[in-house]
Amino acid sequence: MDASGLVTLDDVRAAARRLDGVAVRTPLVPAAWAGGELWLKPEGLQATGAFKLRGAFNAVALLDGDARARGVVTHSSGNHAQALAWAARAQGIAATVVMPDAAAPVKVEATKALGAEVVMVPPPERDSRVRELVAERGLTFVSPFDDARVIAGAGTVGLEIAADRPDAGTVLVPVGGGGLISGIGVAVKALAPGTRVVGVEPELAADARDSLARGERVAWAPDDTYRTIADGVRLPVIGELTWEHIRRHVDEIVTVPEDAILAAMRLLAVRGRIVAEPTGALTTAAFLAEPERFGRAVAVVSGGNADPALLARVLTRSRARTPRPASR
Amino acid sequence: MDASGLVTLDDVRAAARRLDGVAVRTPLVPAAWAGGELWLKPEGLQATGAFKLRGAFNAVALLDGDARARGVVTHSSGNHAQALAWAARAQGIAATVVMPDAAAPVKVEATKALGAEVVMVPPPERDSRVRELVAERGLTFVSPFDDARVIAGAGTVGLEIAADRPDAGTVLVPVGGGGLISGIGVAVKALAPGTRVVGVEPELAADARDSLARGERVAWAPDDTYRTIADGVRLPVIGELTWEHIRRHVDEIVTVPEDAILAAMRLLAVRGRIVAEPTGALTTAAFLAEPERFGRAVAVVSGGNADPALLARVLTRSRARTPRPASR
Repeated sequence: MDASGLVTLDDVRAAARRLDGVAVRTPLVPAAWAGGELWLKPEGLQATGAFKLRGAFNAVALLDGDARARGVVTHSSGNHAQALAWAARAQGIAATVVMPDAAAPVKVEATKALGAEVVMVPPPERDSRVRELVAERGLTFVSPFDDARVIAGAGTVGLEIAADRPDAGTVLVPVGGGGLISGIGVAVKALAPGTRVVGVEPELAADARDSLARGERVAWAPDDTYRTIADGVRLPVIGELTWEHIRRHVDEIVTVPEDAILAAMRLLAVRGRIVAEPTGALTTAAFLAEPERFGRAVAVVSGGNADPALLARVLTRSRARTPRPASR
Repeated sequence: MDASGLVTLDDVRAAARRLDGVAVRTPLVPAAWAGGELWLKPEGLQATGAFKLRGAFNAVALLDGDARARGVVTHSSGNHAQALAWAARAQGIAATVVMPDAAAPVKVEATKALGAEVVMVPPPERDSRVRELVAERGLTFVSPFDDARVIAGAGTVGLEIAADRPDAGTVLVPVGGGGLISGIGVAVKALAPGTRVVGVEPELAADARDSLARGERVAWAPDDTYRTIADGVRLPVIGELTWEHIRRHVDEIVTVPEDAILAAMRLLAVRGRIVAEPTGALTTAAFLAEPERFGRAVAVVSGGNADPALLARVLTRSRARTPRPASR
């Protein structure tokens, strides 16, 4: 980290060394079918089906001996839960995950199957329960996104993009809490300064776009962000630490409508042969809306944990609907 | 090629140099969900959705100047058709593809969209029409499998496996005409001689298994091989050249029933986040039947051009059926 607490290229490179042989070195997959120069970065190929494994593994690897003995804790009902459970087990460390008591049983079971202890709480008690576990058991909290170790791990996605396609005009990255785009921004702006880093949000959860426009963190009402099908980015506000990275490294944030997300899921499966969850399809949806605008583009397909019934439904549409243009 | 006309490791290495920056360098994807030590090689990520691009591109790259000016021809209604069209266009060469007049319109259009001329014929006239095109227009025939240039290109899959996992106990490879397993056999047996090369066929199209058992090429009735859903391996007999490779380099051929193929397609999508066509799912089906038998295994997922309706159907099964054991 630098003097202001921001993640540096050296932090990302150190994370890459820790992740060597652990994370899948995902290739860039050509997607000429998208109507322009597009490459996909299929992070669903990671062991837990999403890029989250990179940040979680890096955070666990950076614990000191005492912290390792006590274990880690987080709150998540999504990909970070399984990522932290996986990363902890891989390094012989105990993991506890606080989940809302309405979480889907399949996600609870998947996290338990990776060896984590799952603590179910009513949603309003989430943060206080995590604090209790930190205080009572000495667990180390690993945020899903607002943590320098997690941002550095996610940044390895950007290292790989800059190595494989230093001539990219744009890298498109989904934005929820902002950890992924923060890390990618650090790596890409350092190694390929000519590449634009563009965030993508659903129209129905565009708090990061509003934050960038206003120059300060803007929160949406949680109920509003829950309208989008892209459950990986249903967050009312980006993090404090991620905001400091985003305001420095992100050029623009675009938004896409819900039907464009589903159309992109279908095309990723049928033409790209990649299973993407809705959040993973956001960036392809943004490209498809304006294939000429982003130049030579890389779309980070952040994860592949799609509900099988939803995937079946998008596949049985007679054809993908024409996406509406992304708003700016 | 060596003195007996067989492909050598040097041929495969030369193909790899030609394919650098052309074929996607596919990673090995961990698949702990399969109940053992399994890695997947997702060749559906290639631009045309299958490994076939490797052999076709290598064959076109090896043409001399006169042959390049005249162009190439093949017969295929499957992945080789699009692969040859793609490879020819990428190298500025004309491609002609002879297809059965009952070929699915979507496959005809996809091949035309890649710039190839498509010649529709009644199935019995397939070979004679290709011979006419070779005689009349001086086109070079590029077999889907029985061609040293195609085998060498396919062998680059094996080079990558041997580099990434030299300690693999088994490499599982689908067998249709035999080009892929021939090439992989050359590379793997030269670089990782401790790795077993195991072919996988549907129970309903097991001519290669019978050939290996009898020590000579055994043909099945074409109507019989057409019963399997794995359309990439519906061939009544392996090639003459591929047979010479298979008898030297392949340790064993196992077979899987139809329901196990569909169950593997489902698991590849839901747990592996990979779209596989039925032929691409053969090897995972074989592993799932006996996860303990193959040791540390790599399953080549040869292609991802699945019919969207079929993929939707396997996804809406309430759960994957338990595959029956593979027969030997």
